[in-house]
Amino acid sequence: MPRQINKDTTVCMSLAARPSNFGTRFHNFLYEKLDLNYLYKAFTTTDIVAAIAGVRALGIRGCAISMPFKEDVIPLVDEMDASAKAIDSVNTIVNTNSYLKAYNTDYIAIATLLQQYKVPANLTFALRGSGGMAKAVACALKDAGFANGYIIARNEEKGPALAKLYGYQWQPDLDNVQADMLINVTPLGMAGGEDEQTLAFSEQAIDSASVVFDVVALPAETPLIKYARQQSKMVITGSEVFALQAVEQFKLYTGQEPTQEQFEQAAAYARG
Amino acid sequence: MPRQINKDTTVCMSLAARPSNFGTRFHNFLYEKLDLNYLYKAFTTTDIVAAIAGVRALGIRGCAISMPFKEDVIPLVDEMDASAKAIDSVNTIVNTNSYLKAYNTDYIAIATLLQQYKVPANLTFALRGSGGMAKAVACALKDAGFANGYIIARNEEKGPALAKLYGYQWQPDLDNVQADMLINVTPLGMAGGEDEQTLAFSEQAIDSASVVFDVVALPAETPLIKYARQQSKMVITGSEVFALQAVEQFKLYTGQEPTQEQFEQAAAYARG
Repeated sequence: MPRQINKDTTVCMSLAARPSNFGTRFHNFLYEKLDLNYLYKAFTTTDIVAAIAGVRALGIRGCAISMPFKEDVIPLVDEMDASAKAIDSVNTIVNTNSYLKAYNTDYIAIATLLQQYKVPANLTFALRGSGGMAKAVACALKDAGFANGYIIARNEEKGPALAKLYGYQWQPDLDNVQADMLINVTPLGMAGGEDEQTLAFSEQAIDSASVVFDVVALPAETPLIKYARQQSKMVITGSEVFALQAVEQFKLYTGQEPTQEQFEQAAAYARG
Repeated sequence: MPRQINKDTTVCMSLAARPSNFGTRFHNFLYEKLDLNYLYKAFTTTDIVAAIAGVRALGIRGCAISMPFKEDVIPLVDEMDASAKAIDSVNTIVNTNSYLKAYNTDYIAIATLLQQYKVPANLTFALRGSGGMAKAVACALKDAGFANGYIIARNEEKGPALAKLYGYQWQPDLDNVQADMLINVTPLGMAGGEDEQTLAFSEQAIDSASVVFDVVALPAETPLIKYARQQSKMVITGSEVFALQAVEQFKLYTGQEPTQEQFEQAAAYARG
């Protein structure tokens, strides 16, 4: 239960075309645990310019930015942190006395996970996807020293462009691609989608890889993750990315850092 | 305690230069009592245009408007209800699918109280004040059929203008004014103000009146109300106005009407 709201309660929020309950549950759980006079609420909007003007004018402390607003908000903020500038994509805005600074905690979370799992940078990777999140992953891989990889995307403009940006190779499909680390940054396997039962990579590709990284966060165990676990591969899940980027937001908004135990409780609670 | 916040929770709020806790406590108490998935939070702003744009863009269901924004918001809404149009002053905005309709529940509350207390319309009144709230009271008096009254205001522009608007007489001070109903719409007697110990009318004027109406809501028992009670006068308090206008807002935002008992509990709780 959130604590009693009063006029001094600090408000944080999110903006997404299709809000989920994850952020609201995650942040409110930690506010309660750490006894912070904060509240968190997910919003949607059809007018991102006015919505961000409102964030600024109402003194809303923090605002998570989800699809499809991650690039739209760039001209609306006062400063871009390196994490957002690196990939021209914002998922977090921090409001300090009406000054808006933009971050990308997805990038931070992915970089952190590559480090925590000690994924060797000499592995060859195959990354499916070419959207904003694919850019965050590719940039984090580049910055972590990964030199050899494929961007797999049917889109003949965005695919080659993303590959070129970070010095990787582009392939329109998975044929003839052999990789040690498979990374899914498409909606394949996402709950509620038409491809929710689809494996993002072939069983054969998974069998011959050593690491599988799925950015899809819902369900926590996608078909790709399930199959990779069965084959005893090292797996990194979208659920981990999502929770870790959320705790980075939490730290930016509150200046407080939850313990690992509190973080795990919050992530489990948020997953519902 | 407010119920668990989730993505579907409807948000209502207030905008004031100096927010109080009354609205936040009043509304959240009733949301809980009536098991409504709503939350209420007081905000302040230095940019009312962007703040109202934010209310619209974020789908905030209702927004109470306090000093000094009650007139500033008129050009920002899509429709003025009769209650707001009558006095060119807004204290409530209802947002229905991004369409903003403005009301003045202060006017509604004052009109309701004059009716509930069955104050005879043939009484002569003396109303101290010439601001937005004074206008709401004067208009409610006029609409209730009061024909004879004085607007008492030192301001030599606003005083006569308000008197003329509703066909009353203007006096710069209380000298030579004899009235059956005394109405204070100034900050005299307000908690925390420099005049918090000041009686808004002389003891002599109170002694010879039959009804005393103080619009000051904090404290609930102002010096004026206390003295009038001691003299066994009929009293109407600002605390009643404030609670009644809040329940009118509650009905507009939620479509629900609390029972008299719930309303009184909420008002008592909100007074803290």
